[in-house]
Amino acid sequence: MNEATRFPPGALPGDTADPGRALFALVARLFPICRSITGNGVRETLAILSEHVDIAVREVPTGTQVFDWTVPKEWTVRGAFLRTANGRTVVDFADSNLHLMNYSEPVLRRLSLEELRPHLHTLPDQPDLIPYRTSYYSRDWGFCMTHRDYLALPDEEYEVFIDTELADGALTYGEVFLPGETDREVLFSAHICHPSLANDNCSGLAVLALLAQTLARRRNRFGYRFLFAPGTIGALCWLAANEEATRRIDHGLVVSCIGDGGGPVYKRSRRGDAVIDRAVDAVRCEGRRVATVDFSPFGYDERQFCSPGFNLPVGLLQRSAFGSFPQYHTSADNLDLVQPQHLASSFRMILDIVEVLEGDWLPLNLSPKGEPQLGRRGLYSATGGHKVTSDVTMGYLWVLNLADGAHTLLDIARRSGLPFRDIAEAAARLKAGGLLADAGPSA
Amino acid sequence: MNEATRFPPGALPGDTADPGRALFALVARLFPICRSITGNGVRETLAILSEHVDIAVREVPTGTQVFDWTVPKEWTVRGAFLRTANGRTVVDFADSNLHLMNYSEPVLRRLSLEELRPHLHTLPDQPDLIPYRTSYYSRDWGFCMTHRDYLALPDEEYEVFIDTELADGALTYGEVFLPGETDREVLFSAHICHPSLANDNCSGLAVLALLAQTLARRRNRFGYRFLFAPGTIGALCWLAANEEATRRIDHGLVVSCIGDGGGPVYKRSRRGDAVIDRAVDAVRCEGRRVATVDFSPFGYDERQFCSPGFNLPVGLLQRSAFGSFPQYHTSADNLDLVQPQHLASSFRMILDIVEVLEGDWLPLNLSPKGEPQLGRRGLYSATGGHKVTSDVTMGYLWVLNLADGAHTLLDIARRSGLPFRDIAEAAARLKAGGLLADAGPSA
Amino acid sequence: MNEATRFPPGALPGDTADPGRALFALVARLFPICRSITGNGVRETLAILSEHVDIAVREVPTGTQVFDWTVPKEWTVRGAFLRTANGRTVVDFADSNLHLMNYSEPVLRRLSLEELRPHLHTLPDQPDLIPYRTSYYSRDWGFCMTHRDYLALPDEEYEVFIDTELADGALTYGEVFLPGETDREVLFSAHICHPSLANDNCSGLAVLALLAQTLARRRNRFGYRFLFAPGTIGALCWLAANEEATRRIDHGLVVSCIGDGGGPVYKRSRRGDAVIDRAVDAVRCEGRRVATVDFSPFGYDERQFCSPGFNLPVGLLQRSAFGSFPQYHTSADNLDLVQPQHLASSFRMILDIVEVLEGDWLPLNLSPKGEPQLGRRGLYSATGGHKVTSDVTMGYLWVLNLADGAHTLLDIARRSGLPFRDIAEAAARLKAGGLLADAGPSA
Repeated sequence: MNEATRFPPGALPGDTADPGRALFALVARLFPICRSITGNGVRETLAILSEHVDIAVREVPTGTQVFDWTVPKEWTVRGAFLRTANGRTVVDFADSNLHLMNYSEPVLRRLSLEELRPHLHTLPDQPDLIPYRTSYYSRDWGFCMTHRDYLALPDEEYEVFIDTELADGALTYGEVFLPGETDREVLFSAHICHPSLANDNCSGLAVLALLAQTLARRRNRFGYRFLFAPGTIGALCWLAANEEATRRIDHGLVVSCIGDGGGPVYKRSRRGDAVIDRAVDAVRCEGRRVATVDFSPFGYDERQFCSPGFNLPVGLLQRSAFGSFPQYHTSADNLDLVQPQHLASSFRMILDIVEVLEGDWLPLNLSPKGEPQLGRRGLYSATGGHKVTSDVTMGYLWVLNLADGAHTLLDIARRSGLPFRDIAEAAARLKAGGLLADAGPSA
Repeated sequence: MNEATRFPPGALPGDTADPGRALFALVARLFPICRSITGNGVRETLAILSEHVDIAVREVPTGTQVFDWTVPKEWTVRGAFLRTANGRTVVDFADSNLHLMNYSEPVLRRLSLEELRPHLHTLPDQPDLIPYRTSYYSRDWGFCMTHRDYLALPDEEYEVFIDTELADGALTYGEVFLPGETDREVLFSAHICHPSLANDNCSGLAVLALLAQTLARRRNRFGYRFLFAPGTIGALCWLAANEEATRRIDHGLVVSCIGDGGGPVYKRSRRGDAVIDRAVDAVRCEGRRVATVDFSPFGYDERQFCSPGFNLPVGLLQRSAFGSFPQYHTSADNLDLVQPQHLASSFRMILDIVEVLEGDWLPLNLSPKGEPQLGRRGLYSATGGHKVTSDVTMGYLWVLNLADGAHTLLDIARRSGLPFRDIAEAAARLKAGGLLADAGPSA
Repeated sequence: MNEATRFPPGALPGDTADPGRALFALVARLFPICRSITGNGVRETLAILSEHVDIAVREVPTGTQVFDWTVPKEWTVRGAFLRTANGRTVVDFADSNLHLMNYSEPVLRRLSLEELRPHLHTLPDQPDLIPYRTSYYSRDWGFCMTHRDYLALPDEEYEVFIDTELADGALTYGEVFLPGETDREVLFSAHICHPSLANDNCSGLAVLALLAQTLARRRNRFGYRFLFAPGTIGALCWLAANEEATRRIDHGLVVSCIGDGGGPVYKRSRRGDAVIDRAVDAVRCEGRRVATVDFSPFGYDERQFCSPGFNLPVGLLQRSAFGSFPQYHTSADNLDLVQPQHLASSFRMILDIVEVLEGDWLPLNLSPKGEPQLGRRGLYSATGGHKVTSDVTMGYLWVLNLADGAHTLLDIARRSGLPFRDIAEAAARLKAGGLLADAGPSA
């Protein structure tokens, strides 16, 4: 098996070296759609993503029991506004789908401002931004608006018009599986339930769709599974339907907020020392190392993948960490926050992580007693006595010294301080020279 | 079993919220008594402590073999002074029991100042303080005095009068045992052999007596055993008589120097990672964390409890560490050094440690696949989308995520960075909600 | 067995307290010899070292297969120079054996300066120094010279005269074995293949020869094996011939660059936590601790001893680390760099390490329940109450507390922070007092 054929490092989406434009274009198409944990917004989003890679669309009927949860009624929204008595529209879903609290029940009423206030959500500290609010599992309704507009509301009667429907239907999610040479799998997951929030998570959807498109064109050692599912309930639906399959997952990443210029920040898996937790150390993004933080049970669907009953080796990869940037969960998480160059560098970082996972293996030194004579194989300087040794030579020496069956290439890269690519290259040459055996992939 | 009933946090000695006055009053009563490793001072002290809690008084006869040691003769002191030839008393036991070296043999002699000098103990660096000296196991006699008085001694003949007795008798120690709901035990120990030293260790005796009084009024999961025993030989007497019982000790604290305003400082058990070693991290004293230092084989009776043949999970809790404060083992360790408010805060800190030990258990998530739906149980915000999550919610999520049978509540508190009380509260609610099983106490 | 007899700490080479002069004299005798990985320079060096200790001289014939290598032809050099057309000698082996690239093949040619340049080696950054270069395993020839002389070479024709011979012969190495009371061994190794480089490694050869001389006069618990072998191929020859013997090696040190005033620096064995890796922490050199660095697979023959097929507990001890000092592998590594007092302090440091290895044992407390009564054995202050305890007493207490079968004396020294000698002394006295059993040497 030729490593180079299996994973040509240069191949990028659309066969171009600049994936930023394609990624941004996709984010821009997904942005306006009103998504929720169920409904046509999800289906429309999956249809667009399917232009890049074949996606199996799964529908889980309302009422289906998944672990401790029940699939809720499907939510449809046709329109919503708030009008003064004299007919002036003060909030309109047509302007921004954030204006309507997600999963609002249908309402057609007249209310005084006092009666209305508990249903109005604002951000007093960010008075020009509309917050994002949901009420999936508790029957409620509400409008989200800027605090500035809220303060300007005249004290009069208002007409509340919320034309939504909560009816038996289904929860929809998308799944891509790219078979690999082995039955071991890598899981990538992005939540698909947020409405017009560009970084959280149109960016994740776009990056993973084009990643799937890229990997589909290659031979891969691992199978790659991509989930585009509504947060929590969607991940639980997949887990409930695939309990056996989870045992084949060797590595996984939840991806969100991946299009801005911050970070990158990686939250380790619950295990804390999984291969994926170490693989992120071997890559760079815009010249920076990936900052890592310990697992905590709050965030995205790593919460479910890392629940104690599954405890999968799945971490969370982001640029700016959720909750840490001011635009988070507001109308400012828009197409200005997400930039083509950052999408491109995030995409390349994830490809580099894939390269580490694909390229990691367990070398066995076939000449373990003393060093083999590298010089006669052209792998060592013919002239001796120099004060320093090249990184190339050090790569050979480190691989040979640690190729004892207890260290993968990733381990050797970490121990030596040399880049993973250099270690992988050294190992490939030593293997070609008959000095190493491949004891199989790492896991 | 109701946690709240079992351990009402507010209950304090004398049913008052301010235990400082009661503790100080007890210290003040114990202070004047001339204690040693044997004799009536110990019996008198135990009689006073018995006003607060039933104490079993043990008498171990002179000559009893305990491990490598032999119980010494009982020491009785009726008086002692040093007089000049013309009848002026220069040192008198009646003024301070520190003046007489503890375990001095009887003497009635006339000596020149030169002959006397080897028997006079002073502190040149602290010329106004009387040192504390002992000679338990080597027949000797001596006077302790201020260096200032020593320098003023005229060069003449002196009358030495030491009216003591070393005779067959017994070593006396006190023991309290409060049975618990289980047969597992917590050991508290304070040395009872020091004469008029207030912090070292009237403070420890007082705090543990009132702690026993408090715990005796409650139902406790653990049995609580309190030892008021002479240093080294007393602890060895108890260990020799209770080798089997030591196997039931899950946690233990030696308490001394607990009434001043320093520290607190905790010296870890020899094991270094016992539950008690971690429990002290979960409490505060006067707003401060407990400083911890590694075990070393010098100090109080943790030396015996942590000898390799027992290796009990017993640490040493102090305010100012022995040997580190200038009043240590001098006449300045008096009722000015010990303060009611510090006694009270130390008392509360130890109660908080007890609360951790009592309240720690091993939770098992009964719904470990994915998160259970907290919202329908009223344990999760109905409205979603907020930027931050409350500590209450984080408590639920941390407990559920780590309730895999490998983490106690104390472990979860440490891992999450949340206060133990909050984790215990979250676990209690999750258990009440049927989401957790109690896999038993931690050990 | 009397520890003091077995290892009298004061005994030094030549029965003098100042080994510096003897060591420096030996370095000075070895310095002028032109050594290589084969040839008479090695034999001449071994003959000089044999004046101090019996050395078994091994000859391994050209063509012998050792693991992945073949013993090369033996190199003999009778003279070499470079002359201008008009007969002016510009480089002459007679001036410095560094001038001729080691293992240069015989040449008798006339070349233009342009043709000559690829064969001239200089140090542009150190224009007044001659570099050290080798070409053992690739047929080549070359001259090494100062960059200043190189720049002054007139552009004319040159006569190259290299009177060397590469012929079937042998590789020579020396071995000393001093049997010990047990069959466990300590390995010391120094490379013998460098020509006129004083620190690298005349210093190592001299220090180990006199160390062998010193240890030969004593009874030792361990057997001591000394290798004086050419780098890489020499070590491999020994390993290939002694695979079984390597299993008896409990500790080992490669010694080089040991005569200058830097460091000391210790590179840990590949195991990283071998006894030798901890023993160096217990000694000092010129008042300084030994700096330690992690193993890396580049350096001296620890590369072979620590190859994964052997993985011996062998570290590298140096003063200034190879490659880190400006004189390294140049003509400035001469008798000015190496100083008698540094040779002496290095020698003493290694003797101290030997003392740790010899003196380390596994104590078992025979009175493990509580502390034994040290006072009646004269091992504890008769008068109690002092604020601090002597290091002597702390030594007893630490040894007794940790003498549980899991801690060697070296472990106890590290844990207590007390000097190894003090712990060893305390243990010896406790053993003499019947309080400790010796559960055997550490390994």
